[in-house]
Amino acid sequence: MARNVFRATAKSLAQGLAVETEARGFKVQLDEPEALGGTDTGMNPVELVLCALGACQTIVAKAFAPKFRIDLEEFWVELEGDLDPDGFMGISDVPKGFTEIRYTMHFRTNASQEHVEKFAAFIEKTCPVGDTLQRPIQLVPAGVVVEH
Amino acid sequence: MARNVFRATAKSLAQGLAVETEARGFKVQLDEPEALGGTDTGMNPVELVLCALGACQTIVAKAFAPKFRIDLEEFWVELEGDLDPDGFMGISDVPKGFTEIRYTMHFRTNASQEHVEKFAAFIEKTCPVGDTLQRPIQLVPAGVVVEH
Repeated sequence: MARNVFRATAKSLAQGLAVETEARGFKVQLDEPEALGGTDTGMNPVELVLCALGACQTIVAKAFAPKFRIDLEEFWVELEGDLDPDGFMGISDVPKGFTEIRYTMHFRTNASQEHVEKFAAFIEKTCPVGDTLQRPIQLVPAGVVVEH
Repeated sequence: MARNVFRATAKSLAQGLAVETEARGFKVQLDEPEALGGTDTGMNPVELVLCALGACQTIVAKAFAPKFRIDLEEFWVELEGDLDPDGFMGISDVPKGFTEIRYTMHFRTNASQEHVEKFAAFIEKTCPVGDTLQRPIQLVPAGVVVEH
């Protein structure tokens, strides 16, 4: 068992709903569009979830293409997810997060459609972020600290 | 029903496992550390999932503090998640994604510990990314396109 622990932080910025996130020194600024109460200085967290899924599929594609003997010149994926903000706003009992996420994968390669479809199925079942989204994950509150 | 559709793309870059993601014109570059086969030009997708969760909790905290009559000067959250890369590598049958995510929330405010703990519980149950992680999400492959 080689359990790894991955870490990140998120911190409010002075302006509106803007947030700075950080992992291993790499930073990403997030916000909400004006229509959702923010000042639009970055993508929002649910868009970031789609980016995480697409990036994970891309990395699996690039990392495992040689094993499938696929000469993968380029890979890209378009993702979209359904979310009803009425849940978040407390207006209705619909789920607060995504209900469905769809994606279309593009492979620039000379491999056949049939072989690429087998590879796509492998990517789907191997991608750690996809697995994280498809299984219920245990979220554990580890502390509430009031700073004065 | 006010279903919104959120969109993003991810695209392989020429160098190693590096990926450029994009949503509404905002871009985030991802990669893997050298120990996981990358060239370490950005955080990796599972770290980005932690950032999305932390940013979402931060935005909920900032957006709903007035409703709880909490003067929230600052909010930050530290997150960590357990993931065994043996699953991803196909070495063992453990899950490929996160098994557990823990977080500690920090509130800079004059509000009491008791009141802040009620607010923290509200943030946990309202956060759309937290809800997305705690429920199994339907991932729908919408197409496999071979580009020549």
